[in-house]
Amino acid sequence: MLEELKQQVLEANLDLPKYGLVTFTWGNVSGFDKESGLIVIKPSGVPYEELKVEDLVVLDLEGNIVEGDLKPSSDTPTHRLLYQKFPEIGGIVHTHSPWATSWAQAGKGIPALGTTQADYFYGTIPCTRRMTQEEVTGDYEWETGYVIVETFQDIDPLQVPSVLVHSHAPFNWGKDPHEALHNAVVMEEVAKMALHTYQINPNAEDMDQFLLDKHYLRKHGANAYYGQDKK
Amino acid sequence: MLEELKQQVLEANLDLPKYGLVTFTWGNVSGFDKESGLIVIKPSGVPYEELKVEDLVVLDLEGNIVEGDLKPSSDTPTHRLLYQKFPEIGGIVHTHSPWATSWAQAGKGIPALGTTQADYFYGTIPCTRRMTQEEVTGDYEWETGYVIVETFQDIDPLQVPSVLVHSHAPFNWGKDPHEALHNAVVMEEVAKMALHTYQINPNAEDMDQFLLDKHYLRKHGANAYYGQDKK
Amino acid sequence: MLEELKQQVLEANLDLPKYGLVTFTWGNVSGFDKESGLIVIKPSGVPYEELKVEDLVVLDLEGNIVEGDLKPSSDTPTHRLLYQKFPEIGGIVHTHSPWATSWAQAGKGIPALGTTQADYFYGTIPCTRRMTQEEVTGDYEWETGYVIVETFQDIDPLQVPSVLVHSHAPFNWGKDPHEALHNAVVMEEVAKMALHTYQINPNAEDMDQFLLDKHYLRKHGANAYYGQDKK
Amino acid sequence: MLEELKQQVLEANLDLPKYGLVTFTWGNVSGFDKESGLIVIKPSGVPYEELKVEDLVVLDLEGNIVEGDLKPSSDTPTHRLLYQKFPEIGGIVHTHSPWATSWAQAGKGIPALGTTQADYFYGTIPCTRRMTQEEVTGDYEWETGYVIVETFQDIDPLQVPSVLVHSHAPFNWGKDPHEALHNAVVMEEVAKMALHTYQINPNAEDMDQFLLDKHYLRKHGANAYYGQDKK
Repeated sequence: MLEELKQQVLEANLDLPKYGLVTFTWGNVSGFDKESGLIVIKPSGVPYEELKVEDLVVLDLEGNIVEGDLKPSSDTPTHRLLYQKFPEIGGIVHTHSPWATSWAQAGKGIPALGTTQADYFYGTIPCTRRMTQEEVTGDYEWETGYVIVETFQDIDPLQVPSVLVHSHAPFNWGKDPHEALHNAVVMEEVAKMALHTYQINPNAEDMDQFLLDKHYLRKHGANAYYGQDKK
Repeated sequence: MLEELKQQVLEANLDLPKYGLVTFTWGNVSGFDKESGLIVIKPSGVPYEELKVEDLVVLDLEGNIVEGDLKPSSDTPTHRLLYQKFPEIGGIVHTHSPWATSWAQAGKGIPALGTTQADYFYGTIPCTRRMTQEEVTGDYEWETGYVIVETFQDIDPLQVPSVLVHSHAPFNWGKDPHEALHNAVVMEEVAKMALHTYQINPNAEDMDQFLLDKHYLRKHGANAYYGQDKK
Repeated sequence: MLEELKQQVLEANLDLPKYGLVTFTWGNVSGFDKESGLIVIKPSGVPYEELKVEDLVVLDLEGNIVEGDLKPSSDTPTHRLLYQKFPEIGGIVHTHSPWATSWAQAGKGIPALGTTQADYFYGTIPCTRRMTQEEVTGDYEWETGYVIVETFQDIDPLQVPSVLVHSHAPFNWGKDPHEALHNAVVMEEVAKMALHTYQINPNAEDMDQFLLDKHYLRKHGANAYYGQDKK
Repeated sequence: MLEELKQQVLEANLDLPKYGLVTFTWGNVSGFDKESGLIVIKPSGVPYEELKVEDLVVLDLEGNIVEGDLKPSSDTPTHRLLYQKFPEIGGIVHTHSPWATSWAQAGKGIPALGTTQADYFYGTIPCTRRMTQEEVTGDYEWETGYVIVETFQDIDPLQVPSVLVHSHAPFNWGKDPHEALHNAVVMEEVAKMALHTYQINPNAEDMDQFLLDKHYLRKHGANAYYGQDKK
C-alpha cells in the first residue's frame, strides 16, 4: 500500500541528517496521498539510521492508524491539520534546524533580503504568534496546526511553503516530501544569511518587490524559464 | 568487573569527538555503579582514538583506585563529589564544547528560549558563581564539585542535568553515561541557538512557563507520550 | 571541440560543492576560449553529481548555441556580457556562497582588512548598486552584467576579480575557470573573516595601503616572488 | 640528514588541513634542530596533498640553503628570526586560520577568559602593533619577525607560544613542530570562543589570575599533574 509514497517519505527522513537539519531524532517527514486520503509518517523517537520502510505509519486525516506497529510521530496532529487545511500540499517536514529555530525562538519572521530566498519563497517566511495557555495545555499538537493556519490567513501556503512556530521550530511543506525537504534546506540557509546580513548592516532593507517578483516567477508559475524543460 | 559499565563509558568517551564536543583530549566521561559504589572513568590525557576498555580506571567514591594502571582524569574529584551528592545519577560528561564554554566564560546561564531546550531541561541551565581563591588554590577539582552542588540548591539535578562552571566549561550528567552524553550534545545545540536568538532579537523573552511544562513533561515523568512505549 | 576547456569547466563546477560554495544547484562555472570566441557553460538546474562533459553547453558571445542538447544556465547572459567587456578573463564563477551572499544582501563591499584578501584582491571587493525596476523587468540577466561593468568603471577587473551583486550574490572571475573558482573560495573566506573582524572591533580600520601593495604585488605582477618559479 | 625532524615537519604540515587551519596553501610549518643549527621548512606554494619529505627545504639561520631543490616558504625570514631570538623553541606554525586571523585583523589580543586558554597560554595572546611603511617596504618578512619579538619584550614566549600579527594572521610555536601545531589548534578554538563570549556578555571580564595560575601550572612546570607520567 502506498509503496511509492512510503519510499519517498523514507528517503526524505534519511535526508534530514544528510543535510544537517537534525540532531538525534529531532525531525520528521510525512507524505500525503490525495487519492486515498492517507498520510505516511515517521514513527516517534526512532533513529534515522535504523528507520526502515516497514516502520512508517499510515493513518487517515482523522488520525486512525491504517497500517504500522509503531506509534506515529508525536507531531502527527499538526501534520494532519495542515493536510486538511492546505489541500494542495503533499509533504511536510518538521525539524529543529538550528538557524531557523533561532528565528523561531526570537519570534521573528525571516524577511526576503535577497534572491536566494526569492527563488523559493514569495516574501517573508512568517513566524506565528505565541500559543496561548489554553492551546498548549489543550490538544497541543493539533492547536499548533491551527496557529500555523491562522498565520497564513493572507499568505498562499504554496508561495511561502514554510513557517516558524514561535518559541519552537520550523515546519516546511511542498507538493511532495522531497520538495518539502528541499524547502527546509533553503530556509535553513536563508535563516543563516539573514542574521549575518543584519550583522553586517543593521539597516539592511528588504529586497525590491520587483526583484522578488522576477526571481520567484522565473522559477515558479506559467512563464518559468529556470532549469531544463520538463518532458 | 563492571564490564557492561566499562563498555558504556568507553562508548560515551568515543562519542565525544563523534559529536564534535571535544578538541584533542578535552573531555571525559565516567559511569557509576550504584550496587558496588564504584566509578569507571577515562584515564588522564589519553587520546580517544587510542582509548581501550582496559585503560579505564575503576575507583571508589573516596578516590581509592580499585583497578587500572593509568592515572584517572584530573577531573575525577569533581565526578566523585557529584556522585556523592546527586545519588540518582549514573553518568557524567565533562567537555569544553565551544558554544556551552562560551556561555561559561560569559558567566551566564542558558535561558529556556524554546522547546528544544524544554524537551531535555526543565528551565535555565545555570552557571556557577566564580570560584574563590581559597577554592582554586585548595583542593580545586573537589571544590569544583561543591560549587556545582551549591548552584543546585534549589534545582533538581535530574530535571536540569547540566551546569556551566564559571570561566571554565560545562558538566553534564544523566541516569547513565549515554544519557549524560546525550544531554551534553543537546546543551551544545541550545547554547548555540540561544546566542543566535539574542542576536536576531536582543529583547527575546523566555518561553512561556506552560510551554516549558508541556514539552518537558511530554517526554519526562509519569504521563510522557513521546517515543515508543518501553517494553 | 574545446575538449580541454570543457574538462576545466566540468572540474571547476564539481569543485563548487567540494569547497562548500553551493547548496543544491546554486552555482555555475563557465570558461571562455579566446581563439574561437566560444563559451563553455554549465546547463541550467542539473545537479553537480550528475554533471558530465557532454552536458556542457557551448555558445558564442551573442548567445547562439553551437553545441549541446540542454539549456544553458539561466545566468548565461551575465557571463556573456562579462566576457565581452572584460576581454582578459577566461573563466567565471557564480554562486550563492553564504558569507559573500550575506555581504551582497547587506549591500556592502568587503573592505581589505588583512593580508589574506591582499594576496588575491587589490582592495575592496565592491558591491553593485541596486538594480532598477527597468533593468530587472527588462533583459534581467544581461542587465546584471551591465551593472557589474558599471561598478568596475574605475577598478581593474583583473586586480579585483570578484563582485557582489546587490540583494543577490557574488560573481568571480579569473584567467581560467580554475582561477575563478580559486577567487570564489578566497572571497568566501575573507567575507567570513571581515564580519568577525568588525564583531571583535567595530572600529577596525582597513589595512595600510603599503601593506596591501606589498602583499598583492609579491604574488602578482612583474616582481612576484611567492611560489615556485614557473618553468 | 635530519630525517626525524623532516618527518615531524611533514606530518605537522599535513595536519594543517586536517585540523581545518588552512585554505589552499595558506600555512607553513618549520622545525629547528638545535645541534646542527638547521631549519627544515615547507617549500613555497606546494599543495599539502602533494607534499613529500624530499620537497622540504633545509637551511641555516642565515638563510643559506643546505638541501632542497625548491624555494622555501616566503615566510622563511620570519621563521629564521624567531629561531634566533627565541632559542628554546623547536617548531613554528604560520597559518591564516579564520578565527585567529579575525582577531589579528581587528588588531586585538585574545584575552584569557577561561581555563581552555589557561591550559596552554599563560595570559593574553598578544597582537603586534601595525608594521610601519619602512618595515613593510624593506625586508618585510624579516621585519615581521622583529615586530613579533618586540611584542614579547615582557612576555615569555614559552609561556605564551602564539602571536597575532596585526592586519595579517597568527604565528604559533613550541618545543617541536607537533607542539607548535597543537598550540595553533588551541588558539583557533579560544579565538572563536572569546568572540562568542563577548557576544553573550559584552561586559565579560578576564578569568581570575589565581584560576589562570592553577590551570597553567597544573599542566606546565615542575608540579604539573595532568596526563600520564612521562616514562
